[in-house]
Amino acid sequence: MTLIEKAIAQIKPQSETARATAKARLDCLTMPHWALGRLMDLAVDLAGMTDSMRPPVNKKTLVIMAGDHGVASLAVSKYPQEVTRQMVHNFVNGGAGANALAKLAGAHLLVVDMGVASELSDLVADGKILANRIGNGTANMAEGPAMTREQAVNSIEAGIEIVALLAPSTDVFGTGEMGIGNTTPSSAITAVFTGKSVASVTGRGTGIEDGQLANKIAVIEKSLKVNNPDPLDPIGVLAKVGGFEIGGLAGLILGAAALRKPVVVDGFISSAAALIAHAICPSCADFMISAHKSVEQGQAAILAHLKKEPFIDLGLRLGEGTGASLAMNFVEAAARILTEVATFDEAGVSKA
Amino acid sequence: MTLIEKAIAQIKPQSETARATAKARLDCLTMPHWALGRLMDLAVDLAGMTDSMRPPVNKKTLVIMAGDHGVASLAVSKYPQEVTRQMVHNFVNGGAGANALAKLAGAHLLVVDMGVASELSDLVADGKILANRIGNGTANMAEGPAMTREQAVNSIEAGIEIVALLAPSTDVFGTGEMGIGNTTPSSAITAVFTGKSVASVTGRGTGIEDGQLANKIAVIEKSLKVNNPDPLDPIGVLAKVGGFEIGGLAGLILGAAALRKPVVVDGFISSAAALIAHAICPSCADFMISAHKSVEQGQAAILAHLKKEPFIDLGLRLGEGTGASLAMNFVEAAARILTEVATFDEAGVSKA
Repeated sequence: MTLIEKAIAQIKPQSETARATAKARLDCLTMPHWALGRLMDLAVDLAGMTDSMRPPVNKKTLVIMAGDHGVASLAVSKYPQEVTRQMVHNFVNGGAGANALAKLAGAHLLVVDMGVASELSDLVADGKILANRIGNGTANMAEGPAMTREQAVNSIEAGIEIVALLAPSTDVFGTGEMGIGNTTPSSAITAVFTGKSVASVTGRGTGIEDGQLANKIAVIEKSLKVNNPDPLDPIGVLAKVGGFEIGGLAGLILGAAALRKPVVVDGFISSAAALIAHAICPSCADFMISAHKSVEQGQAAILAHLKKEPFIDLGLRLGEGTGASLAMNFVEAAARILTEVATFDEAGVSKA
Repeated sequence: MTLIEKAIAQIKPQSETARATAKARLDCLTMPHWALGRLMDLAVDLAGMTDSMRPPVNKKTLVIMAGDHGVASLAVSKYPQEVTRQMVHNFVNGGAGANALAKLAGAHLLVVDMGVASELSDLVADGKILANRIGNGTANMAEGPAMTREQAVNSIEAGIEIVALLAPSTDVFGTGEMGIGNTTPSSAITAVFTGKSVASVTGRGTGIEDGQLANKIAVIEKSLKVNNPDPLDPIGVLAKVGGFEIGGLAGLILGAAALRKPVVVDGFISSAAALIAHAICPSCADFMISAHKSVEQGQAAILAHLKKEPFIDLGLRLGEGTGASLAMNFVEAAARILTEVATFDEAGVSKA
C-alpha cells in the first residue's frame, strides 16, 4: 500500500456515539438551551472527531507550506515571484502576520518548503524550516501539466509524513500557505470540482485590477482546456492544475483525518487543498473545521461543496494560516464548553 | 460635579493623530494591502482609543453585573427569578459558560451584585463577589418606574467607581450581565432610543414560545405607556424601564471611556446599556467594541444606532459576557498586528 492508500484506509467518520454523548451533556448545561450556538455544534464535532468527551486541543501546530508556480510568469499576481522566498524569510524572522497570530493562538509554526523556485538551504541547514522540495516551482499550467503525476503523489505523501512527524506534539492542526500566484491554481481546482465557471470562482488574489483579473480568468480557462482535468481523478487534477504546497496541504488534511485529529482549514488556497483531499477520501471532511470566510469568492463554492460553514468573517484575504490561527480560539472555546461548564444538576440551578 | 458629570467631562473622542499614524504603518505591512481586514480597522481604533502605537491589551477584566427585575413576575422569561442568584453562585464556583470563556481569554472575572432580589452576603463576606446593591431587584416597570431617579444615578455611578477600582489592573474591559427577565427592559430601552416598534426589537430571550413572546411584547408596550420615557433624558429612561445591572454597565462604559480604555460590549443587554451610556455622552461610543451579533433581534437596531459592527456571529444568546470574552482574542490580534508585523522595508520584501 502507498502512504496515500494507508491514510485512506485509516480514515473513519466521526464517532456517532461520542457525538450523541457530547450532545446529551451540552443539552443540560447551565444556560438556555444551546445558547452558545455554533460553539456547541463545534464541541459535538470535536467529540466526534477525537472520540472523546475531553477532546485534546492544547497542542496546536500551524503548518505553512510554501511553493512557487510557473503560471506566475503570466502576470496573475500583483507581486513578483521572489516574494514567496522573501516571505519564508519573514516567517523565520517572526515578522509576518502568520507569526503574530500563531503566537497569539499558542500554536507552533512550522514552515515547509514544498518547492519554492530556488532553494532555501541556509534556512534548512539552520533547522528554521523543513524542506520537502518536489521541484523548483511548478511548470506553467497554461502550457501543460503543472507537475508530473509522481510529483503530485509525492507532494501529498509529504503532507501525510509531516503529520506523522508532528502528531506527538499536536492535538489540532492548522493549514497555511505561501506561494505567489497560488490563487490561480486554486481557482482552477475549484472550477474542476464544483463545476462552476472559472469567472465565478476567480477573485483578485493579492489585489489585482480589472484588466489583470480578466487575464487571470483567461489563463485559468486556457489551463483547463490544455490539461482537461478529470474531477474523478483528484491526483490528476493536482498534477495538471495544482501546486506543490496545495498537494502538501491535501496530504496534511488526509494525514490528520487518519489520526482523528481536527484540522483547521484556513482560507481559499487551503480550502482548494481540502477539495482535493475530500475528492481522494470524502470522510476526511469530518475532521475539517473551516476557519474563516475568505474575500476570495471561490471559497464559498468550495465550502458549499464540502458542506462547511466558516467561523470568522472579518474580510481576511491574507492566507499564511492567519484565519486558522484565529479560529483556534473557537476550537479551544468549544472544548472548554464541553469539559468545564456545569450542568443544571451539577450546579443546583433551577431548570426552565 | 457628580461622578457622572466628571466622567462626561473626561471623555474625549479617539485621537485622530494616533489613528493616522497607525493607519500609515498598517498600510505598509508585509501583506497585500489591508489583507487582515476588520482586524486592521480594529487596530486603528485601538490606537485611537489609547492614543498609542502600542495599545496595551494584556490585562483584561470581564465584569458581570447581576440584578433582578420586578417585571419577571409577569412571566416574561422561561426561568424563575431565583436563577439569577443561583447563577451568581455558579459563577463563583467556576461552572458557568462565562467562567470557561473568561478563563480562555485570560480575563479576570468580577461579579457584582447590583441588586439581586435577595442578598448574597455570604459571597460578599468571602470576597467572592462585589456588592453595590441598589435595591432588592427593581420594581415592576409595567406598573410604574422600575426604580427612582436616585437609584438610576447610583447604579451608573457604581459602574464608574468599579472602573476606577479596576483600572490599575485592566487594559481592556468586557461587559457581562445576569438577570432573569433582563431582555425585557433591554427591549424597552431599545425601543425608546431607536424609535423602532416594541415588536420589532423584542426576541425570545431564554427561549420563550409564541404565546409568551406576545405577552412579553404587551408587557413592554404597557411599560412604555405607563412610564412614557423620554429619550432625551437617558437617566430617566433607565429609571423608568431599566435595570440595576444595566445602569451599572452603562456606568462601566462611561468610566472606561473616561480613562481611554477599550470596552468590549457583549450582546443584547450590554448593548442596551451602551445605548444609555451613548445617550448620556455620545463620544463614549468611540471606546466601544461590539463583540458579537446576538440572536436577540433588538441588538441589530442598537448597533445600527451606535454605528457599530459586531466581530463574531456564531448564534450566541447567553449573555454573561461570553461573547465579550471571545472577542478579546480579536482585540489582542489587532494589537499584535499593529506592533509585531514587519513592514515591507523592515523585512526586505519586494513591494507590488
